[in-house]
Amino acid sequence: MENRLKMQVDFIIEIDKLKRIVRQSYLTDNIRKENDAEHSWHLAMLAIILKEYSDSEIDILKIIKMVLIHDLVEIDAGDTYAYDSKGNQDKWERESKAAERIFGVLPKDQKEEMQGIWLEFEQGKTSEAKFAAAIDRIEPILLNYLSKGKAWKEHGVKKDQVMERNKVIKDASIELWEFIKEIIEESVINGYLSV
Amino acid sequence: MENRLKMQVDFIIEIDKLKRIVRQSYLTDNIRKENDAEHSWHLAMLAIILKEYSDSEIDILKIIKMVLIHDLVEIDAGDTYAYDSKGNQDKWERESKAAERIFGVLPKDQKEEMQGIWLEFEQGKTSEAKFAAAIDRIEPILLNYLSKGKAWKEHGVKKDQVMERNKVIKDASIELWEFIKEIIEESVINGYLSV
Repeated sequence: MENRLKMQVDFIIEIDKLKRIVRQSYLTDNIRKENDAEHSWHLAMLAIILKEYSDSEIDILKIIKMVLIHDLVEIDAGDTYAYDSKGNQDKWERESKAAERIFGVLPKDQKEEMQGIWLEFEQGKTSEAKFAAAIDRIEPILLNYLSKGKAWKEHGVKKDQVMERNKVIKDASIELWEFIKEIIEESVINGYLSV
Repeated sequence: MENRLKMQVDFIIEIDKLKRIVRQSYLTDNIRKENDAEHSWHLAMLAIILKEYSDSEIDILKIIKMVLIHDLVEIDAGDTYAYDSKGNQDKWERESKAAERIFGVLPKDQKEEMQGIWLEFEQGKTSEAKFAAAIDRIEPILLNYLSKGKAWKEHGVKKDQVMERNKVIKDASIELWEFIKEIIEESVINGYLSV
């Protein structure tokens, strides 16, 4: 096999491990927790379906690539729960190292493209990064709502924390943020989320 | 909530069920079978990484959408194993009905776009549909190879059947078909696949 194709296939095999990284959100049937590969697929679908709500012009292909690869670093660095302040302290260092190794399996040009897209997502400055970040927050809120707050309760997460963490949604879309605020309010009313 | 957004969110929630549809291929660690959502994510990654091998001009965004949604019909119709000739007899009828219901959750314009892309994939005539079909066959062959033919053995699948089913790869890419033939040959040599 040609060397370039071999590197690409090695990467494809390496990232199969994303299917083993378990997140804190439960699926809508509440039976088990979601893994990173499923989560990334779902985010890509949200991006496609909800792109009209972006308040800026966006390149949807770039956003899809972002959400498909944004969690690959967790193959090495593991999933850090959004509300785990200790785990979030050294997250950047762990994930940068992981990005270097994992994207480094690819041929140089593809490594640079993928690592660049990942970095753009992490820096959160472009319209695409902001929309991808919004989508990445909306999906677990929906799952939490549908699983009656199971993961929120397990971690003792409060409404203020959810509001604080997710307010970045409004940097991408006022309309989606209004919708998510309604979901958060309903979660409190239904007893899924405590104040 | 506005009616259009409500329909879109209902669709996003509906398709969470894709994470529960179990396929026959095992993950590379051989511990459990893959589900459709993980599979769809992996295909999108293969499409992005391997697009340069297409023998025709392709619209990569369309291919990504195709592979992300191609299995949604299995939420109603279930997974039909590639080498199950009985199950494949009424597959088209079951899946068409499923497409009508599932994409029908979306607002009309998005229903038409998504159902159209799904139909284009199923008909297999365009360059995008051919490349998506090739990718959809390459991924399980890699998983089978890495899990030492576990699923092939469980179903008593023979080399001739694998060659017959997967030769469509060459309609998308001669180079990828040459590579897959090598993997199939090696699978026979290693005892993962019987003749």
